[in-house]
Amino acid sequence: MSLIVVGSMAFDAIETPFGKSDKIVGGAATYIAWSASNFTRPVKQISVVGGDFPREEMKILEARGVSMEGVQVKENEKSFFWSGRYHLDMNTRDTLETQLNVLGNFKPVVPDSYQDCEFLMLGNLLPSVQLSVISQLKNKPKLVILDTMNFWMDTAMADLEKVLKKIDVLLVNDAEARQLSSHYSLVSAAKAIMEMGPKYLIIKKGEHGALLFNEDKVFFAPALPLEVVFDPTGAGDTFAGGFIGHIAKTKDISFENMKSAIIVGSAMASFCVEKFGTTRLRELKREDIDNRIHAFKELTKFDIELG
Amino acid sequence: MSLIVVGSMAFDAIETPFGKSDKIVGGAATYIAWSASNFTRPVKQISVVGGDFPREEMKILEARGVSMEGVQVKENEKSFFWSGRYHLDMNTRDTLETQLNVLGNFKPVVPDSYQDCEFLMLGNLLPSVQLSVISQLKNKPKLVILDTMNFWMDTAMADLEKVLKKIDVLLVNDAEARQLSSHYSLVSAAKAIMEMGPKYLIIKKGEHGALLFNEDKVFFAPALPLEVVFDPTGAGDTFAGGFIGHIAKTKDISFENMKSAIIVGSAMASFCVEKFGTTRLRELKREDIDNRIHAFKELTKFDIELG
Repeated sequence: MSLIVVGSMAFDAIETPFGKSDKIVGGAATYIAWSASNFTRPVKQISVVGGDFPREEMKILEARGVSMEGVQVKENEKSFFWSGRYHLDMNTRDTLETQLNVLGNFKPVVPDSYQDCEFLMLGNLLPSVQLSVISQLKNKPKLVILDTMNFWMDTAMADLEKVLKKIDVLLVNDAEARQLSSHYSLVSAAKAIMEMGPKYLIIKKGEHGALLFNEDKVFFAPALPLEVVFDPTGAGDTFAGGFIGHIAKTKDISFENMKSAIIVGSAMASFCVEKFGTTRLRELKREDIDNRIHAFKELTKFDIELG
Repeated sequence: MSLIVVGSMAFDAIETPFGKSDKIVGGAATYIAWSASNFTRPVKQISVVGGDFPREEMKILEARGVSMEGVQVKENEKSFFWSGRYHLDMNTRDTLETQLNVLGNFKPVVPDSYQDCEFLMLGNLLPSVQLSVISQLKNKPKLVILDTMNFWMDTAMADLEKVLKKIDVLLVNDAEARQLSSHYSLVSAAKAIMEMGPKYLIIKKGEHGALLFNEDKVFFAPALPLEVVFDPTGAGDTFAGGFIGHIAKTKDISFENMKSAIIVGSAMASFCVEKFGTTRLRELKREDIDNRIHAFKELTKFDIELG
């Protein structure tokens, strides 16, 4: 049994108030795989890259237990490219350039060896591509997690509504939750979104932490207050990777365990933002992760006697 | 030994996306007293009101153990009045009108019977008025908490710097912490502010919770996700009242107990916003408060095994 990750493997060029990167390796599925592979292996990747994507990157991921069988390589095309500039608040950004390239006509194919899928992580992509992967699976996974963004709400809402009916956990940020539900209160937004399909909703709030909703239950996860947020690119994907990595490792999809999974995801995201791109994720040791999770425990622990 | 609360007792007229209030009783010291008196009595109030302030209000507070000996009544003048309109996000607001009235020339006098002060809560006011109360106290209180706002940073920074050197805990919101420190990162801001005097810093983030800093320690308190925030007026003061109320009740000024005090403050603030003005605070029973604190425990509790 295994975890499938679907998403882009791509190039990013990033400007922040602290500096500027060259064209570096990025993409939702790249970050998710770097993050999740700390907790569970194999991670079975589904993506598409052009001939320009470094083979070395794929070998490094394979050495970490990330299968590339589902990654199509289009030798004569170019990989997806995004460049953006972050504002001083590091929560908002402008897109400078988007080149869809190989993603423009991506037809994902689920290899036979992936049909043992127990957990499916659908990274942010065209909803029709996400739907295609779900429909190719012969058995329903134990848990399907979907990440999406405002762009698909604006341009592909009908498909997004279809895919929402087929998933268990939706990941969005606070502005997207508001847009998707037409409710300002996140509690009201969560109720409305859970009526659209997902039983669980995770609302990511960047430096303000994350909320997990299920029925009438809610969990508030903190974000680690950081002195320097160097580059937020990929933080949401790294969060998703830690979340699904912990779920796949423990094979426990209870609300209680999802809380732990959110803390793991938050800890991983807190590393991601410390350096450009995937740099910090590549350096991590198990001990670093344990120490960071411990810091999250300390951050929110309190004991109060009532009455 | 007792708690002194210094601040305005006043009138507010409030517009929110949900409705509009008449001229209703408000003011920092009013909210603080309503909140703190759930946990400790007496609460010794220092304020000034005009002849228009309802005597009945003062009697109701006295019946709750709030001493009015330090409240000056200027029969021929009018009470402080503020009116404002909240934006849809309920975190930002426009001031429509401010009439200083009796606050314009307020000379606080600390009655002799208040000289047993163990805890001093300086609500948001002119820094020179806050300084005057500190300097009238013959013995240094066990803990001095100060609330302030961006307006005083713009107009009375020299006095604010003086008072910051004489207090233990500073309460500000995230925008104010950034303005006061000239740092965007709240971690950097906290370090800079703690060098200005206070050993403890609480940064209130509204619907995003609150942070407590002391030396290199940090605590992240959640806010209860609410379906309806009806009126945020006084939420910060109600938070302060719950915080100092819990500290005065337990007489424990350790970092660990301040975490609990922040949860109590957050619980009280979550009630405050449910109805206009002080309406909800007047209805509260001990059981309601205990249940709400329990909800905060549930909201952040998680258990995760490392390794």
